[in-house]
Amino acid sequence: MDLYKYIRNIEHFPKAGVHFKDITPLLADSAAMESCVEQLLAMIENQKIDKVAAIESRGFFFGTLLAQKLNAGFVPVRKPGKLPYKTLKEPYQLEYGMDALEIHEDAILKGERVLLHDDVLATGGTAKAACNLIEGLGGVVVQCNFLLEIEFLNGIKKLQNKPVKSLLKF
Amino acid sequence: MDLYKYIRNIEHFPKAGVHFKDITPLLADSAAMESCVEQLLAMIENQKIDKVAAIESRGFFFGTLLAQKLNAGFVPVRKPGKLPYKTLKEPYQLEYGMDALEIHEDAILKGERVLLHDDVLATGGTAKAACNLIEGLGGVVVQCNFLLEIEFLNGIKKLQNKPVKSLLKF
Repeated sequence: MDLYKYIRNIEHFPKAGVHFKDITPLLADSAAMESCVEQLLAMIENQKIDKVAAIESRGFFFGTLLAQKLNAGFVPVRKPGKLPYKTLKEPYQLEYGMDALEIHEDAILKGERVLLHDDVLATGGTAKAACNLIEGLGGVVVQCNFLLEIEFLNGIKKLQNKPVKSLLKF
Repeated sequence: MDLYKYIRNIEHFPKAGVHFKDITPLLADSAAMESCVEQLLAMIENQKIDKVAAIESRGFFFGTLLAQKLNAGFVPVRKPGKLPYKTLKEPYQLEYGMDALEIHEDAILKGERVLLHDDVLATGGTAKAACNLIEGLGGVVVQCNFLLEIEFLNGIKKLQNKPVKSLLKF
């Protein structure tokens, strides 16, 4: 199934000059969602996955679906202050200023094979921070898996020592 | 499967005096997740569902899983400024001050049968706001479906004209 037609362009969101890719038409269509999950799984090529880690909030949409299909546990990677237990924290650079991500300290066991998923690969800053958190707990990042990639932002460069796969490229 | 043992108590989160129910141990266990989805589905009792609407962010964990199992579309209900297309907005009361939720104007068609899902029913304020958004678009709230309910907060009272089901009660 061609999923590109389920992605809506929104001009000037969240700010002037940005062409935002809206995935809600895809989410709203059950058959398109099913096909999308199958296509995301195909990118993993039967590699063994112990945990799927997904980044707040849009990474959660497909993160739990992928985890269930892979018989893997699910790990939320969240903005600071959202996870209630003891966390590891990783700062990352924004266009202006800094932000950070957190993961629960007990979310990943040493040596576990982890699929990192998010909806969009843009500059790669958040994905790189999430990889650092996974590896900080002793996990192995088997693949950075994205629904879509904004290629001109060259986020793949920040993840250059990791296997990166994106389903839809813009 | 007894899912209570996968819920971790965190004292004084997000602030002093609050006993937080941490669902991440449940998310981390694939078999527990599968059983949880089946038990949430059992509460729906084969009613026809066109769309599953879930509330940011923790509602997203089970929201897309439920939508896929029900062959229904998925609709995110989000905090202000997060949804990129035209939205309907609904304010609601917090302990101190106000917050709001938004839904895309085209997310639900008139007459569609909607399952509202969130992880926790506490005071019921966010769930009530989400119901207002669904009904504001002409949707019918078939059930308010929660993973867990904090009974002493009496959130069910705010949803008194809606069918409410919660899987785990505290």
